[in-house]
Amino acid sequence: MIRVMVTGAGGFIGRQVVAALLAKGVRVDAVDRIGGEAPAGCAWHTLDLMDAAARREVIESVRPSHLVHLAWDTRHGLFWHAPENLDWVAATLDLARRFQACGGERLIAAGSCAEYAWTADALPDGVCREDSTPCRPATLYGTAKLATFQVLHKFAAGCGLGFAWPRLFYIFGAGEGPARLVPMLMAKLAAGEAVVLRHPDAERDVLDVRDLGEAIAALSLSSACGAVNVGAGEGVAIIDVARRIAALLGASETLIERGTPGPGDAEPPRLLADATRLRHEVGFHPRHPLNDALAEAIADWRQRSGG
Amino acid sequence: MIRVMVTGAGGFIGRQVVAALLAKGVRVDAVDRIGGEAPAGCAWHTLDLMDAAARREVIESVRPSHLVHLAWDTRHGLFWHAPENLDWVAATLDLARRFQACGGERLIAAGSCAEYAWTADALPDGVCREDSTPCRPATLYGTAKLATFQVLHKFAAGCGLGFAWPRLFYIFGAGEGPARLVPMLMAKLAAGEAVVLRHPDAERDVLDVRDLGEAIAALSLSSACGAVNVGAGEGVAIIDVARRIAALLGASETLIERGTPGPGDAEPPRLLADATRLRHEVGFHPRHPLNDALAEAIADWRQRSGG
Repeated sequence: MIRVMVTGAGGFIGRQVVAALLAKGVRVDAVDRIGGEAPAGCAWHTLDLMDAAARREVIESVRPSHLVHLAWDTRHGLFWHAPENLDWVAATLDLARRFQACGGERLIAAGSCAEYAWTADALPDGVCREDSTPCRPATLYGTAKLATFQVLHKFAAGCGLGFAWPRLFYIFGAGEGPARLVPMLMAKLAAGEAVVLRHPDAERDVLDVRDLGEAIAALSLSSACGAVNVGAGEGVAIIDVARRIAALLGASETLIERGTPGPGDAEPPRLLADATRLRHEVGFHPRHPLNDALAEAIADWRQRSGG
Repeated sequence: MIRVMVTGAGGFIGRQVVAALLAKGVRVDAVDRIGGEAPAGCAWHTLDLMDAAARREVIESVRPSHLVHLAWDTRHGLFWHAPENLDWVAATLDLARRFQACGGERLIAAGSCAEYAWTADALPDGVCREDSTPCRPATLYGTAKLATFQVLHKFAAGCGLGFAWPRLFYIFGAGEGPARLVPMLMAKLAAGEAVVLRHPDAERDVLDVRDLGEAIAALSLSSACGAVNVGAGEGVAIIDVARRIAALLGASETLIERGTPGPGDAEPPRLLADATRLRHEVGFHPRHPLNDALAEAIADWRQRSGG
């Protein structure tokens, strides 16, 4: 019987993955540092994955067939270079070992587009391809994720464990932290404040978090193996996202300015997912068009902020 | 004041590193799973590095300025694919974090020639170069070592920690385990047993373990940074090593046969270190010519085995 344990289950992404799995009728064990209200069909386990004993205990008592490991340091602005990335590599490898030793069949752990080289030579058309784009992460976060992927991939191949590594691109939507781009744009534009974009023309692969949840749930129940980009497979300029939000807020008059990048601020002009594997091997297609999804994110943000 | 902690201090390599550091007048704290007799100038700490609390306690109480981390799973024949490699990645990252947090200044951790791609396209002349030979490890061991290197390298750069990663090639000498190539050749040839070599013409970079100890000690006190090959920088065919041992044992008549490699047994024809960085940046040159070193290894082996 399929029994999926999801770590980081109470987070921005985890909540949507749990919802998508439950919608497929799968039994879910949610793990999070913070206690949560478990939806029907889901058991909630409150524990800190940095606690090795608690980590092992939950795996040994639940004995899940599938593990969707999303937990990591995601503190806005800090996680790129935080030394805690080392702790997450260590905890993730230990979790994978215990899961496999307890009869686990399939492991899905979250990777990132930050594993790829973001330089013009490596990314001439801005499209990241799992099998050919070089991985040369610029950050400690990207390096830690890539190292974890490489070890888990080899480990899984050696012991016959199913393994997929969804590489996430830009995500937005319900429940997003206020410091992230889309909520920040909403707050400023709704207040009539001018917005300065440091990378207005940067094209990004932007996915509604509900679509991401669906994609990870589908990937976890598929037989796709190794790194799989999870993105829309098409790009939108950041200034276009800002203009759409302004229009949806009825704030089209608010100034959206082109700023200048800071020193050493090397964002690539285009960063898109080649989503061929996700489409063909997992059968996933996004269901939320950008404008609808932005409108719903605005409604969610208004409800939460009383705005 | 320089205070060097050496992990795996009681092992085949660790003993020589400790001896070389003590010979340089450096204060050494030896860490090993197995209790040992501490030489003068050295404190011995018996603990299992898999025990997180013990690991942190020894770092916090000793507060070394330098950490030479050699401990890893080295069980002959098993370590290439053992799941324990994951535990060693985790323990190594945690140790590095604690060391840096406790004021550690320079970290040296042992890497391996197994991190490099051993394929003909990647290694056309059989010489591994730190800055240009691709790293595509074939084994879980090589993958785990490479992942650890990548994370530590980025971590160290971010927090200003000195960091070097000696990549070891083939080592032999006093105190070597009986299942390894040179002791196995000694035992068979001394007993007049025919020896069958599966890769007789494979050229390897072979270093006396005392030279390796000197090299790692010198590297730890240098300012060289990143991956540094530790090898002789020249090759010898395995059949030549066997013939030299036979001659030294007075067993030149014993048959040394050319066997055939097993299926999937993809040893590269040449695997040598480019030792330029070790020579120029660390100032290290091997002191033990191969024949002398083999003669001394035979004397050591005879003494230990009563042979």
